[in-house]
Amino acid sequence: MPVNYPPPAPEPLLPVPGVTLGAAPARIKNWTRPDLLLVSLAPGTLAAGVFTQNRFCAAPVTICREHLARSGSARALVVNAGNANAGTGARGLADARATCAAVAELLDCPADTVLPFSTGVIMEPLPVDRIVAALPACRDALAEDGWFLAARAIMTTDTVPKGASRRTELQGESITVTGIAKGAGMIAPNMATMLSFIATDAPIARPLLETLVGDIAAASFNRVTIDGDTSTNDSFVLFSTHRAPVPPLARRDDPRLVTVKTAIWAVAVELAQALVRDGEGATKFIAIVVEGGRDAGECDRVARAIAQSPLVKTAFFASDPNLGRIVCAIGNAAIPDLDPGRVSFWLDDVLVVADGARASSYREEDGKRVMAGSEIGIRVVLGRGPARATLWTCDLSHDYVRINADYRS
Amino acid sequence: MPVNYPPPAPEPLLPVPGVTLGAAPARIKNWTRPDLLLVSLAPGTLAAGVFTQNRFCAAPVTICREHLARSGSARALVVNAGNANAGTGARGLADARATCAAVAELLDCPADTVLPFSTGVIMEPLPVDRIVAALPACRDALAEDGWFLAARAIMTTDTVPKGASRRTELQGESITVTGIAKGAGMIAPNMATMLSFIATDAPIARPLLETLVGDIAAASFNRVTIDGDTSTNDSFVLFSTHRAPVPPLARRDDPRLVTVKTAIWAVAVELAQALVRDGEGATKFIAIVVEGGRDAGECDRVARAIAQSPLVKTAFFASDPNLGRIVCAIGNAAIPDLDPGRVSFWLDDVLVVADGARASSYREEDGKRVMAGSEIGIRVVLGRGPARATLWTCDLSHDYVRINADYRS
Repeated sequence: MPVNYPPPAPEPLLPVPGVTLGAAPARIKNWTRPDLLLVSLAPGTLAAGVFTQNRFCAAPVTICREHLARSGSARALVVNAGNANAGTGARGLADARATCAAVAELLDCPADTVLPFSTGVIMEPLPVDRIVAALPACRDALAEDGWFLAARAIMTTDTVPKGASRRTELQGESITVTGIAKGAGMIAPNMATMLSFIATDAPIARPLLETLVGDIAAASFNRVTIDGDTSTNDSFVLFSTHRAPVPPLARRDDPRLVTVKTAIWAVAVELAQALVRDGEGATKFIAIVVEGGRDAGECDRVARAIAQSPLVKTAFFASDPNLGRIVCAIGNAAIPDLDPGRVSFWLDDVLVVADGARASSYREEDGKRVMAGSEIGIRVVLGRGPARATLWTCDLSHDYVRINADYRS
Repeated sequence: MPVNYPPPAPEPLLPVPGVTLGAAPARIKNWTRPDLLLVSLAPGTLAAGVFTQNRFCAAPVTICREHLARSGSARALVVNAGNANAGTGARGLADARATCAAVAELLDCPADTVLPFSTGVIMEPLPVDRIVAALPACRDALAEDGWFLAARAIMTTDTVPKGASRRTELQGESITVTGIAKGAGMIAPNMATMLSFIATDAPIARPLLETLVGDIAAASFNRVTIDGDTSTNDSFVLFSTHRAPVPPLARRDDPRLVTVKTAIWAVAVELAQALVRDGEGATKFIAIVVEGGRDAGECDRVARAIAQSPLVKTAFFASDPNLGRIVCAIGNAAIPDLDPGRVSFWLDDVLVVADGARASSYREEDGKRVMAGSEIGIRVVLGRGPARATLWTCDLSHDYVRINADYRS
């Protein structure tokens, strides 16, 4: 059960003009549900993406990077769940290319405008035959309102599909942003989450789209961690179908950009937080804000040291205000000249540590009250500068171990 | 139950001339067992230590550093379990000094030759009164054969006491090395483990003792990780009582040094591995060797990325050869120019990955056979240089979560 995340009903995932989606079962694992997604994009669609920094990046990530570098035009996405096509060497690359070629033939578009994505078990060969065989059924299912089924098709250990939409106005014209995401474990995105796709009909020129996708990732998907493991397949791609009848946005100083960027960012944050809320075994959603650092980098290191400490995470699971574990994590954040005597932190509105030691006002029952909730805020003040960073994470429960000990069986 | 670690019987922990140990219950937590240890060291004993790199280091760590920097002479150790005296600010420092003063009075020695150590819950005030009250009982119990009871007194979540001894010969004289250690969670020593004390009667001069303690820590306690959390209290101190009737060792090129260092290192490795075998919830002992790196640092980063990945650790717990998770962890080890196509790895004698992809000879049943054991070796070859690093770790089980969710209750 995800933490305070009602899965999106099919209705609110708004169609984006120029985007149709269709899914079908390809039996990539021993599943009968649809596990293959085809997305068709209208001619003129531009795309930009950010991808995992893992050196063992998956074959489809390599191909996506290659295709996006070539033209930036995208006519189709093909996404399979159940197999990551990572750690598969030369064969993996050939398999990803073969999948793109089959889609290109089916939709009559150049193969290098097809972007492939895979998610699932690492180091197993991709069953290309079964994927190619299921593609016609995906094409037959293509529909503008296919977003909800698409969000379901890309799930692996996710317990709920994840999608979000925003509608806004640009020069009197309605603009839509809709996105989906998947991922519940192996989540500590370094550029993006496991998989997320966001499309808008707002017309955005290519260089600006590339800037935007990085900015948005930095303020959404790169702000979450579940278990500190950056996956081999992380991909976040932003599509602009250029269907809205307004002049294209091409410059960073275009005053209309704020409107569009805010809508895309809202969708991305909703999806990023949904990943954490559905984190493997999660029972609590924890927002960590670190302030008063010299730069955002050191604030981020402190936030990650807290978020990725198994001892902190198990204390949250137990609703135990064992707050010394947070102190210990702060001390481990690789800031050699940190002065502990200037550090303070709050648990929601409760001051726990002031000037490096337990606050005289702190009472254990106040800590217990906050820890018992399912939404918990941690605010750390380092007292050494003006920078800040935010990170969203979850606790570490029995179910995380159960899910990951049983995953392949 | 620790993994293949028969706790030391009282007998093999050999007395070290010049060292007597006594423990008593101080009821620091709601325990009735002895939780306070006093060690008396003969006049002339020299000491050198390495301590946690955690910025929130505990008050006793600060005092130990101060006392060792002053003289290097040590006449006593006072160690309590159940309370870490960390995150306790100025009061914590005053409490540690008060404890030293009480010991100094009791044993009639200067307060700055008393070294204090604490381990347990962080950010609770130290119950100095109960400690001071129990010190006379510790003094009355002082005995040369007190090592085993001492190892028991310093336990927290440890399930077994940890101790080791070696006897060797130097110029025809018998030399003894005996040590004890504690720690089962919050273990990723950056300089040393939670607490370990090793004493020898071999006479070692101070500068050499300081070099030795760092060298030994680097090759023993700094080679283990249980959960990646470096504690606030890590301390490893080496004592030389100078009781053996041989001329002191003072120079690195003294040919006798090999004999002494080998004996100390053997005790340290046995203790370090015992920490992992008794790691919280551990069911497997895993030795990771990374070879073929450009330098030892990058080999160490790869080994830690594997050892600290919760996904790798849960796969080991499940005896599931989900080896893609190891591939993913290697890719996350922050080596930007790593060529995955040159990486290979073995699980014991089974070649799993060759040149970045699954080895053609690899069969799942071979992986399963190795994973089913309780002692597992991982060997990674990076194919980019001559360096290597070793790391010892354990799996992540349901019991790790249970132990840490329940710790304070």
